[in-house]
Amino acid sequence: MVNPLTPEVLADPVALTRALVDIESVSLDEKEIADRVEEVLRSLPHLTTHRHGNTLMARTDLGRAQRVVLAGHLDTVPLNDNFPSTAEGDRIYGCGTSDMKSGVAFALNLAVTLPEPRYDVTYFFYEAEEIESRYNGLNLVAQAYPHWLEADFAVLLEPTYGVVEAGCQGTMRATVRTRGRRAHSARSWKGVNAIHAAGAVLDRLAAYEARTVEIDGCTYREGLNAVRIHGGVAGNVVPDLCEVEVNYRFAPDRTPDEAHAHVQEVFDGFEVTLTDSAAGALPGLTAAPAVEFLAAVGAAPVGKLGWTDVARFAALGIPALNFGPGDPNVAHAPDEHVEIGLIREGAATLRRWLA
Amino acid sequence: MVNPLTPEVLADPVALTRALVDIESVSLDEKEIADRVEEVLRSLPHLTTHRHGNTLMARTDLGRAQRVVLAGHLDTVPLNDNFPSTAEGDRIYGCGTSDMKSGVAFALNLAVTLPEPRYDVTYFFYEAEEIESRYNGLNLVAQAYPHWLEADFAVLLEPTYGVVEAGCQGTMRATVRTRGRRAHSARSWKGVNAIHAAGAVLDRLAAYEARTVEIDGCTYREGLNAVRIHGGVAGNVVPDLCEVEVNYRFAPDRTPDEAHAHVQEVFDGFEVTLTDSAAGALPGLTAAPAVEFLAAVGAAPVGKLGWTDVARFAALGIPALNFGPGDPNVAHAPDEHVEIGLIREGAATLRRWLA
Repeated sequence: MVNPLTPEVLADPVALTRALVDIESVSLDEKEIADRVEEVLRSLPHLTTHRHGNTLMARTDLGRAQRVVLAGHLDTVPLNDNFPSTAEGDRIYGCGTSDMKSGVAFALNLAVTLPEPRYDVTYFFYEAEEIESRYNGLNLVAQAYPHWLEADFAVLLEPTYGVVEAGCQGTMRATVRTRGRRAHSARSWKGVNAIHAAGAVLDRLAAYEARTVEIDGCTYREGLNAVRIHGGVAGNVVPDLCEVEVNYRFAPDRTPDEAHAHVQEVFDGFEVTLTDSAAGALPGLTAAPAVEFLAAVGAAPVGKLGWTDVARFAALGIPALNFGPGDPNVAHAPDEHVEIGLIREGAATLRRWLA
Repeated sequence: MVNPLTPEVLADPVALTRALVDIESVSLDEKEIADRVEEVLRSLPHLTTHRHGNTLMARTDLGRAQRVVLAGHLDTVPLNDNFPSTAEGDRIYGCGTSDMKSGVAFALNLAVTLPEPRYDVTYFFYEAEEIESRYNGLNLVAQAYPHWLEADFAVLLEPTYGVVEAGCQGTMRATVRTRGRRAHSARSWKGVNAIHAAGAVLDRLAAYEARTVEIDGCTYREGLNAVRIHGGVAGNVVPDLCEVEVNYRFAPDRTPDEAHAHVQEVFDGFEVTLTDSAAGALPGLTAAPAVEFLAAVGAAPVGKLGWTDVARFAALGIPALNFGPGDPNVAHAPDEHVEIGLIREGAATLRRWLA
C-alpha cells in the first residue's frame, strides 16, 4: 500500500491533518496508522525511532541543554457517521479532527521539517488514549521504558482551541449508597425504600456549590456530579439498595486523598466508597522551555479542566501543558471538526518556539 | 412411574401437601405435576376433566342451583435450597408449601373425597401463575374456554394464613422521567444534570402519604413506591436522562384510569408515562355462596393487598376471594413453610361449607 503520508502532505499541517483523519484508527485498531507514521519517522536520519505496540517514540539527539516532548495519541473514539474527513469552509470535519489528529499533525510536521530544533525534541505518538488506562500507550511506556520520556517539559497536543491549558484537574469517582429493607410492594410499609432515601443524596448534589480555584494565574472550576444512579430489584419489590456514582473534578491544589475526604464530608451520614481517582497536575509554568513556549504563544494560559495525560507527565516529574487547535467542545461529537486557521496558527507558534 | 398421589395420600391434606411439594414444578416445568393430578382426576367418575397445556379443569355436574370454583396454581417460584420438603415440629418447609401447594391440596382432597358437594364445584389447577401473564393458565383458559370458569363464586387458594382476604388491590407502574443536557463532567456547568433533578421526584415519594380505604368492612392500604431508578451515560458525562419506575398499589375503589390520574397528579410537573396496570377487585361478599363461606369460616374478612388472580375472576364477573393456609410473608422465601394446624383447620372449613 502506498503511504498516504507523502512528502507534500507532511509539509502541510492542514493536508496532514486530513490524511491522518482518513486513516481509521479507533482505539485498539491503531496498527495501520502506527505503521504509516513509523515508516515516515524511520526515513528521517535526524531521528532515532522506537516502537512499543502501536506507540512510537522518535527523538533528536543534538546535545541540547534541554529536551521537550511533543505528544499526541493516534487513536480516536468510535466513528459516528463522520469518516472520512470532509472540508466545509474554514473547517475540516471528521472523527479525530479535533481530538487529536490536528495536534498529531503539528508534531509529525515538525519531526519531518525541523531537523535542528533549539531544544532536543522527543516526538511521542501513542495508542489507546480514549479507553482504559491499561491500554494507554503513554501509561505503558511510562512503566516499561520511562527513559523514553525523560525531558524538561512536555506539550500534549490535546484540543484546547489554540490556547494554552496548563496543568489539569484531578478526577475521582465514588459510590454513595443508601440502604433499606426489601418488602413486597403490595405491603410497602413493611420495608424501607432505599431509592426514596437517595432523594437526600441528590438534593445535596443539586445544592452543592463548586469551588473556583486560582493557581499561577490559571482558574480551575470544580464540579461534583452524579454520573450514574441505579437501584431496584423487581417491579413488585421495595428496593433495599440504591447506588449513586458521583464524579468529583477537583483543582490541582487538592490531592486525591483530600478530594476523597471532601466527598465524604459532602455526603456525611451516607455510605461512601471510593471507586477510583487520578491526581491532577499543577500548572508547572516555571521551567525555562515553558516560559519560552508561553512567550511564543503570546497569550495567558488558562487552567485545564478535564483530566488529561499531562497528569502522567506530572507524575514522572515533567511539567506539561495542553495545546492544540481542536475545539474540546466538539471532541467525541458526531460533528467533530477543527478550524483550518487554528491549525495554521498553532503550527506557526510551535515553529517559532522550536526553530 | 408410580403416582405418589396414592389414595392414602389424597385422603390427608397434610400428606397431600408434602407429596405435591415433592413433585418439582417451577413455572414452565409443570408437566409432571399436571400428569399426576390429571391421572387422579380422570380416575374419579363423578368428575368431568379437561386439560389445556398443563392446566386442568374438573367439574361435578350434579344440577345444583349454584356453582363454585376452587382454584390453585400448580407452579412455584424457582427452588432456593428448599426442595424436597422437610417437616419440623408443626411446620412443613419447602418450595411451594405456602404458595400454594397446601391450597392445591385442599382442592384435590375435596375433589377425591367429596363426590356430592352441596354446590356444583369446578376444580381448577393451573400453570404458570408466578411468571408473566401470557403464560398464566387461568388467563389462557379465560381467553380460550371461558365457559370452563363459569360460576357464581370462586375461592382462590392463595396463602392468607387461614383468614379470608377479599377482593384485591390494583397495581400500576409508571415511569417518571427527568431530563437534562449532556456535558463532559469536567465542564459540568455546561450541562444540566438529570439525576440531580430526580431528587425532587424521590422527595415527593418519601413525603407521600398513602390512603387507607375501607370497603365492605375490608381495609385496603395503598402504597406508592419507586421500584427502580436508572440514569447515567458514562463515568465522565453529565447525564441527560433519569428514569424512576414507580409502582402504585391502589384500593379497588379506584379504576386503573383513576390510579393513573392520581400518579400524574403526584408527579405534576414531571414527565409521567404509564407502563402497565391491572384493575383491582371489589370484595364481592354478597353472593349467596360467599355469605355461606364466610359463615363457615366464622371470622371477618380483610382486604387483600397484593394483586392476585381474583382480579381475573372479577373481570369475568365472578366474585372471588383468597383463602389458604400458607403464610404470605414467607412465600417466595428460602424458609417458605406452612403450619400443619392451619392445613387441618382450613380443610375442615371448606368441608363444612361444601359437604
